[in-house]
Amino acid sequence: MKILAASTSTIYGQEYLAYLEDAIVDFFGNARQILFVPFARPGGISYEDYTAKAAAVFARLGFSMRGGHAFANAEDGVAWADGFFTGGGNTFLLLKTLYDTGYFTAIDAAVRNGKPYMGTSAGTNVTGLTIGTTNDMPIVYPPSFNAFGWLPFNINPHYLDPLTGSTHMGETREERIHEFHVQNTQPVVGLREGSWLMLQNDVLQLHGIHTARVFQQNKLPEEKSPGKGLDL
Amino acid sequence: MKILAASTSTIYGQEYLAYLEDAIVDFFGNARQILFVPFARPGGISYEDYTAKAAAVFARLGFSMRGGHAFANAEDGVAWADGFFTGGGNTFLLLKTLYDTGYFTAIDAAVRNGKPYMGTSAGTNVTGLTIGTTNDMPIVYPPSFNAFGWLPFNINPHYLDPLTGSTHMGETREERIHEFHVQNTQPVVGLREGSWLMLQNDVLQLHGIHTARVFQQNKLPEEKSPGKGLDL
Repeated sequence: MKILAASTSTIYGQEYLAYLEDAIVDFFGNARQILFVPFARPGGISYEDYTAKAAAVFARLGFSMRGGHAFANAEDGVAWADGFFTGGGNTFLLLKTLYDTGYFTAIDAAVRNGKPYMGTSAGTNVTGLTIGTTNDMPIVYPPSFNAFGWLPFNINPHYLDPLTGSTHMGETREERIHEFHVQNTQPVVGLREGSWLMLQNDVLQLHGIHTARVFQQNKLPEEKSPGKGLDL
Repeated sequence: MKILAASTSTIYGQEYLAYLEDAIVDFFGNARQILFVPFARPGGISYEDYTAKAAAVFARLGFSMRGGHAFANAEDGVAWADGFFTGGGNTFLLLKTLYDTGYFTAIDAAVRNGKPYMGTSAGTNVTGLTIGTTNDMPIVYPPSFNAFGWLPFNINPHYLDPLTGSTHMGETREERIHEFHVQNTQPVVGLREGSWLMLQNDVLQLHGIHTARVFQQNKLPEEKSPGKGLDL
């Protein structure tokens, strides 16, 4: 499988996907027709507008892009595609719509057969085992929390270190992940904004300027550096 | 119905439930046997330890408290109780365990028949229509997101105003609630830490030192002041 899973689409002060452009060109390579999955709808944006936003970047990089909603069914969309990009937004809405439209099964089969998949934020959450470590609000009820499971762990995108001096009594991200590990056994990768994971030729690597924080059940969290293989 | 729904159990720099002690004494009144619902397990705390923590406060205020897990079944626990207190923690875990144990149905019937119910944080989330506006991670999969629906809206506890100057690209609380309203019609009450809602004699009032932020679909958010009736 060939997976690029980014914490965020956009770095503060930059344009949409700007920091990932070189990685996108390298990653998709000769896969020129990219299916965009707009189902996470950040801010409630329409499928059409969201697809246009992503397609503007991909077109400039030399790719042809269409939205998954524009096909008669998931099988047609996946047959057209050489690769996939799933944008961020609400992870519950994304997963529910993937299931409801049949895209879950169709994309899963295509990616397991080698078509490259890139996700940002919510699109990255679904590359792991479950969406149980999303930061999003459960605005719709999906038929399951099970995600694609291409990566053998869970991801927490937009990972945030505890704010020093905060007087807010809500749980920190690390506390939430600890609570996850009271109920679940799989590792969780806290992926900071500006980081991405890449799986190619059975090797998983961390990219970008930050370390990632890896949480395993009943162990202390560890910081993993970019550039080396991540063995999880 | 008689409901006290607090944003948080604990205000920064204070002891557990300290700011609510006068309200607790007034609210429960002659209801002296209070069933504690420990299922949300903040930080993964055990049912026993969590119940002991709450019972220490309630005992000092003159109430007898037992944990819901200590009864043979939900019917026995609810029959013993003159009232209920559900503590905070993880809302998904709370709701799933309420369903799994039978406490959901039993507590719902008792509260609709007049027994007082107090919740903090996750315990407050479940007083509304659904848990669709919780801030928690979906660490377990409940059989439904439907909550008790005693209050005819959703609640967002620990409501946070946008941080000025933040460079984090995750959604603000207000953006998340907007995304909720693209998919759902019910109002959402953003309840700041230190605020609580009280429903008594069919009158709903906001208490505490803060205004609450009320979100309605297709309307601008409004700030509501404490002390007046909230008409939602």
